[in-house]
Order: sequence, then structure tokens, then C-alpha cells
Amino acid sequence: MNIAMIEAAAKRLEGHARRTPLLSSPFVDEIADRRVFVKLEALQHTGSFKFRGAWAAVSNLDDDALKAGVIAFSSGNHAQGVALAARQHGAKAVIIMPADAPQIKIDNTRALGAEVVLYDRGSEDRDEIGDRLSSERGLTLIKPFDEPQVIAGQGTTGLEIATQAAELGVNASDVLVCCGGGGLTSGIALALEAKAPDLRVRPVEPVGFDDVARSLVAGQIRRNDKTSGSLCDAIITQQPGEITFPILKRLCGPGIVVPEEDCLRAMVVAFSRLKVVLEPGGAIALAAALYQSDQIDGDDVIVVASGGNVDAGVFRMALDKYGDTA
Amino acid sequence: MNIAMIEAAAKRLEGHARRTPLLSSPFVDEIADRRVFVKLEALQHTGSFKFRGAWAAVSNLDDDALKAGVIAFSSGNHAQGVALAARQHGAKAVIIMPADAPQIKIDNTRALGAEVVLYDRGSEDRDEIGDRLSSERGLTLIKPFDEPQVIAGQGTTGLEIATQAAELGVNASDVLVCCGGGGLTSGIALALEAKAPDLRVRPVEPVGFDDVARSLVAGQIRRNDKTSGSLCDAIITQQPGEITFPILKRLCGPGIVVPEEDCLRAMVVAFSRLKVVLEPGGAIALAAALYQSDQIDGDDVIVVASGGNVDAGVFRMALDKYGDTA
Repeated sequence: MNIAMIEAAAKRLEGHARRTPLLSSPFVDEIADRRVFVKLEALQHTGSFKFRGAWAAVSNLDDDALKAGVIAFSSGNHAQGVALAARQHGAKAVIIMPADAPQIKIDNTRALGAEVVLYDRGSEDRDEIGDRLSSERGLTLIKPFDEPQVIAGQGTTGLEIATQAAELGVNASDVLVCCGGGGLTSGIALALEAKAPDLRVRPVEPVGFDDVARSLVAGQIRRNDKTSGSLCDAIITQQPGEITFPILKRLCGPGIVVPEEDCLRAMVVAFSRLKVVLEPGGAIALAAALYQSDQIDGDDVIVVASGGNVDAGVFRMALDKYGDTA
Repeated sequence: MNIAMIEAAAKRLEGHARRTPLLSSPFVDEIADRRVFVKLEALQHTGSFKFRGAWAAVSNLDDDALKAGVIAFSSGNHAQGVALAARQHGAKAVIIMPADAPQIKIDNTRALGAEVVLYDRGSEDRDEIGDRLSSERGLTLIKPFDEPQVIAGQGTTGLEIATQAAELGVNASDVLVCCGGGGLTSGIALALEAKAPDLRVRPVEPVGFDDVARSLVAGQIRRNDKTSGSLCDAIITQQPGEITFPILKRLCGPGIVVPEEDCLRAMVVAFSRLKVVLEPGGAIALAAALYQSDQIDGDDVIVVASGGNVDAGVFRMALDKYGDTA
């Protein structure tokens, strides 16, 4: 896993993934008490950064593998990314999704041409299901984070951040990244190590699902007790990956842990100030910048707003609770 | 009023206005039954294209005029644009706003450092108030649309559309633009005439406020009976401008008239498919593409999503009505 793989992925993604904007707002700056720059991966194809890793992995397959098709397991955003990337390569995609994933994510994955297989998050092991289906049908498994090509694809976000931050004159700052299994976080960290070493990645997780923050403190992998029950469904994993964790450990600053409620508030700030729709997990890095500013160093901060695939009902709830205050 | 003025405005705007993305979604294409490309001016500074015209006008003033300050009348988006452009030039701004403008727009205009003067839309003449205040205090009036430098600034949107459409291989299509007084529409039309003559501008207005569509049919300026009472507050004017109308008449295809309700539906489509927040008037061109596709020619259509300054209450209403269907 190195910068050359990320740069090679960036070449393959050219003309396919979007170079998403890095936006700011004086109103957001005022709440956060420093300049805040928001990398809008919610505007990526399929509404999240996951399209990058999916495209990087699928575009790396040989013709036989593409002909047989791919399989992925995902709570939703990776699913949509793999479904679209596979369709654009003319490959079949089977997606294993938790039955309690947001309906919009299940519907969208099907609409993107994938075959969706649902499983129960509490009682079934998605890895076991994935292994069985992939061996039965000859499908290539595209893992959601602990897979070098996927990390390389997500890392292209970091290449763009390095360029865009330099254009804005931001040469040293924390870069807050929502963290599930660590694919996006480790990919960005590797990209910044090579291209903007004074931009330091900080993983951000919801309260109760802070496996990465605790693993970084312990110096070894720690697990979450729960694997469901968070509004931030997109970024809930049991533990950091075997490939991602050593990268996180080597390159990241301390993790930041954010109450879910602050994600809802940050969604409303993004709505009213940036005009962008974020899902709870996609808003968590912004929430850290807005409401945990004492944990952040420097005059500037960069946050990755990683996805916007939120049900109307959850968004309404956020507006109901915080729409009059943001 | 010519292309050279638009290109000069583009130079002055460089590094200040955002080059907003032109996005698409396979889900939006499916509803519209053709490829739809959405120019996201809601992501412009202050949440609408109005910042472009304001910056173009303010940046064209001499030092004495900047020192005295500027004045503008606006239902909200032009107000915020002028307030921010003036502040960034170190100039004082007085903004005359209708008392029934969305609270968020009044609040934001004040927060951007402007002095806000409220008036009653039904009983008072905003032009008269503007003239009086500007002569009393020596302020330069920045008109919202019937002003060459403002048209030139809005026209920079058209320069970007020409470039971005060519990159996407779209060389001939309708370009749907929300139309109030016609500043944005005429500016884009002039830019496209010079840079992409097979992109044809179509003004879009809400039912009951279709002065431009009727004026184009009549070949001369027609007025609306009402000047308030629309959800599309940002694009309600009594009639097209003296400068803008001849341009619209020479360059635009027929107007399209859209029920307000379709703007709410289009807002929800933008929410779920593009992850962007649009206000009702800012969604009207997208609404035309989605729900009046029989009025549009060609395999592709470009729509300008002009603004995203919407109260949480209006957005909740849109989600309540259409959130389960989009």
C-alpha cells in the first residue's frame, strides 16, 4: 500500500469520478471559530466517496474477472459505488446488504442494476455469506475497506485535498475524516503523507462506536461491542482493518468521538450554510469541527463530508429538531 | 451589453466566485427521460448566482464610489450577494428588502454586515425608496437585474456552462433558466450566443408570474398582476427589464411555465438524487426538465439550479409532501 497505487488509481478514475469541491462559508467559520473547508464527497457519483474505491477496484480487474462479475457487502454506500462501477464496466454485481440498511440505499443499489441479497446484522456473518456466494459463482469480492485497491481509490480524495488546500493557502491543518473500517481515512492519510505532510488526518467516530479512537490509544486493534443501532449507519464497523489500522496508527492524530445528536445539528448547518445534503455519518467530521473545536489545532480545519444518502424521514427529524436554530 | 463585458466580468470574478459544478444523476435522467445536467449555483457564495452579478458590479466601481458605499433592493438573494461583495471590497452596503422575505435571507444579509431597510411589498415602491436613500447618502444603486454589469456577472454562469457542456460532449440542447427580471437569463443567453450557439436558453417561471413567457409571445413587455404570494419568492418580478427583455426576445426559445407544486417535487429530487438543497425558485428549471419534458427538444437538457436559500419550514413541507416518493 503506497502513494504510487493511489496515483495509479487517480489515473484510472480520471473522467469517471468527480473532483468534488472544497467549500467554505463565513457562517460555518463563525460557529467553529476557525476557517473550515468542507470536501463535499456527498456530491460524488452515488452520493458518497465509496464510488472512488469501487471504481479503483473494478477497473483493476482483468477481463475474465469482469465477465464473471463482482460481489460486495455493504450497509449501502459501498453497495451503490460497486453497483454503478460494475455497471459502467459491463459487469454483473451481487450486493449483500444488512436488512436494516436505509431503504433508499437498498432501492438505489437495485436501481443501479445490482442483485441485492439481504442478511440480518445481528445473527448472520456477512463475511461468511460473501465468501460462500463468491466461491459458488466465481465472483470477485470487492471488500469495503480492507482491500488495497479500495484504499487507493478512496485515497484519491486526499490527492484532491492536497491540491485544493494548497490553492487556498492552507498548508498546515487537521483533516477530519469519518472513520468506519478506515479505508477512506487511511487512503487520505497516505496521500497527504506524500503530498501535504503538514495536513494531519484525525479519524472521527460516533459515541459508542469508537473502535478506531480506542485502538489508536491502545496501539492495537480494539472492537466495538455493538455493530448496529447508530444513525451513522454508513460508518459503523466492528473494528479497523488489518491493512488500514497500521496506516492509521503510523499517520493519524488522535481520534475524535462525536455524539450522534451533533451529527444531526451539523446536517442542518450543511443544509442552511453549504446547501448540501449530508447523511448523519457523512456529517460527523463537520460536527467535530463545529462542536469539538477545543480538540482541534490551528487556525484552519479541513473536513470530509463523505456522503449524502439519507432517508427523507431522518432529514426531516434533523430539521424538526434544529431547523430553527441553525 | 455584449460578450466582451461578460468576459471582463469573468476576469474580475476569478478567484472570488466559485466555478460551480455541472452534475447529473442516472435517477434524474430516468424521470426526465433524457440526460439532465444541473448547474449548481446553489453552491455559489451566499447560496445563489446573485453573488456573480453583485461582485461584477461592485468590482467595477471607482474608489470614491466604494468609499461612499452601495445600496440594493432585493427579496434576498441579490441582497446577500451585494452584502458579501461589498464587505469583501471594504464598502458599506444598505439593502432594502421586502418585509415578507424569508427570515433566513434577512438574517443572512444582516450577518454579512449590511444595513437592512424593510418595506411593504404591497403598498410601497422599492425603486422610489432606493432612489431616495441613494441620493441622500451618495450611495451607488446596484440594481438586481436591469444593470449591464450585473447582467455581465450573471452571464459568467453561461461561459462556464459553455465550457462544461463541451467537456461532456453536449453541443446542442435547451438550457432552462429560472427567470425573474431576466438578468441571469439574458446574461447566459449572451454568453451562449458567443460560445455555444447551439445551446438555446428557455426562461422558466411559476404559474401566475409568467410575465416573461407572455412578453415573449406578445413581442413586447407584459406585466404580472401580482408581485407576491409565490413560494418562488426569489424570482418574482413585475416584468422583464428594459435592458434584459430585448436580449431575451432576440435569443431565447419559448418560456416554460411551471406549477409551484412541481418546484417542491423537484426540490425533493435534488435532495435525494443530487444531494443539493434548492429553494423553490432555484428548483423551477429542474422542475421543468422533470415534469414538462414534452416542451423540451433533444436528448439532453441543461438546467440552472440558481439558489438554495430556503427556510427549514419550506424544506420540511417539501419533504413531508414528496419525501416518500422521490
